[in-house]
Amino acid sequence: MNAEILFSYICSKRSYLCIGLDSDEEKIPRCLKEFEHPVYEFNKRIIDATIPYCVAYKPNLAFYECRGGAGLRDLELTIGYLRKHYPDIFLIADAKRGDIGNTSKMYARTFFEYFNFDAVTVAPYMGEDSVKPFLEFKNKFIILLALTSNPSASDFQYYTSKENKPLFKEVIDKSKSWGDIDNLIYVVGATKASMLKAIRKQIPAHFLLIPGIGAQGGDLNEVAKYGLNRRCGILVNASRSIIFAGKDENFAARAAFEAKKLQQQMEIILKDAKLIL
Amino acid sequence: MNAEILFSYICSKRSYLCIGLDSDEEKIPRCLKEFEHPVYEFNKRIIDATIPYCVAYKPNLAFYECRGGAGLRDLELTIGYLRKHYPDIFLIADAKRGDIGNTSKMYARTFFEYFNFDAVTVAPYMGEDSVKPFLEFKNKFIILLALTSNPSASDFQYYTSKENKPLFKEVIDKSKSWGDIDNLIYVVGATKASMLKAIRKQIPAHFLLIPGIGAQGGDLNEVAKYGLNRRCGILVNASRSIIFAGKDENFAARAAFEAKKLQQQMEIILKDAKLIL
Repeated sequence: MNAEILFSYICSKRSYLCIGLDSDEEKIPRCLKEFEHPVYEFNKRIIDATIPYCVAYKPNLAFYECRGGAGLRDLELTIGYLRKHYPDIFLIADAKRGDIGNTSKMYARTFFEYFNFDAVTVAPYMGEDSVKPFLEFKNKFIILLALTSNPSASDFQYYTSKENKPLFKEVIDKSKSWGDIDNLIYVVGATKASMLKAIRKQIPAHFLLIPGIGAQGGDLNEVAKYGLNRRCGILVNASRSIIFAGKDENFAARAAFEAKKLQQQMEIILKDAKLIL
Repeated sequence: MNAEILFSYICSKRSYLCIGLDSDEEKIPRCLKEFEHPVYEFNKRIIDATIPYCVAYKPNLAFYECRGGAGLRDLELTIGYLRKHYPDIFLIADAKRGDIGNTSKMYARTFFEYFNFDAVTVAPYMGEDSVKPFLEFKNKFIILLALTSNPSASDFQYYTSKENKPLFKEVIDKSKSWGDIDNLIYVVGATKASMLKAIRKQIPAHFLLIPGIGAQGGDLNEVAKYGLNRRCGILVNASRSIIFAGKDENFAARAAFEAKKLQQQMEIILKDAKLIL
């Protein structure tokens, strides 16, 4: 996996949608409870219904770990299903890990080797030696938190230096030399779309993973206006607004409907930007 | 669990040692490979041998997650064994989590409810709303990363404001009002022992979790000199230097030997500080 392949997925799906599989067991429809692995069953149906409209899935580790080994088994089954049936898809572990070197190496092996993800989200607080072990894996991406979409992002990410530079910009400046566009992506929240302009000056060519559309209120056109580059360069994530759009037997159809709505907006944006015909 | 109970453990064990269970399957002695759960077997024997010398154990999640469900099963068995046989012990999940609110809540449930830990390490980058969900659990601690012991800690933790204040101090100042001494502990690396003096001015009463002794080179007396308060106020962690001190059948005895050496130094320090008789 590299940036060129990711762009080819975007052109072929006419979409840069990433769907977050925050598959909370308590929120999945009752009709699935009779299955041996209800969460896996939920994911499988969401995937089958939404695969035409997205280029990436992003399981959120918290929603699997919270049930210990049984939860991780659901995650393994989900990844296995995707790899078998839909090989041309970008798989992101939303794990936000970050620890000292030998521990980060173990987390990298967990997500890249054991679970076979293409990418993992990583927190920057502990610095380069906590990030590098992930970058040593070939054909894999790390997705580094820069500016997140939650209200308290401002607590520390805006911490400002003498030179009037907020921490999140320092994170980008310092880290961009650790990898390149083929193994390093940044998280930039959609709730701060106007900031994308300045971030694009710092890293014109990197892909950005943009959460905060849907449940968190970000705007797709704003994001495109400031975030697009000549290989698209953005993945926009939506989680709950898609996977929990329906509550009953109709959940997969409702998810497909919501995903398609976003895909259609993205197709227009990609056409307007002349990235697809 | 609260700070008073933790101090009572310290007085009774005459130790403030925390042992990190970074139980890398590839490093555990061959003689354990025949067991059904070699990593659990390893932990059990390490625990039985070292329990007289420590007040806390700190499994490092990376070393369990890397084997998926089987690894988490080893973790569950280890916690279950500790809770059954040694109820008076402080159990820390070294997980360094941190995500938006609803995800952090799920991580909190994972470590506090599903696994029954007393405490979990949390990364501050995403700010208050990523930390608060952990603090809502009664009788549990979060252990927030402030100043870590790895070489690249300086990349962002020393990022300095106009007022010449490094980020790690801002993390402490801002977060200390989110909780209190009974639910909030800070990670401060032993490799920066002299900085403990200034940190003690910021947070005189909080417990600190201090990694970096042993394999990472920190000094126990330096740490005590600057870190001790009137309820001890420090937990010093050692992981690999204890659990992998021996490589053969002697591994548990060697671990006990190394743990006892640290406990004896700690006993002298605690007596000198008149915290125990």
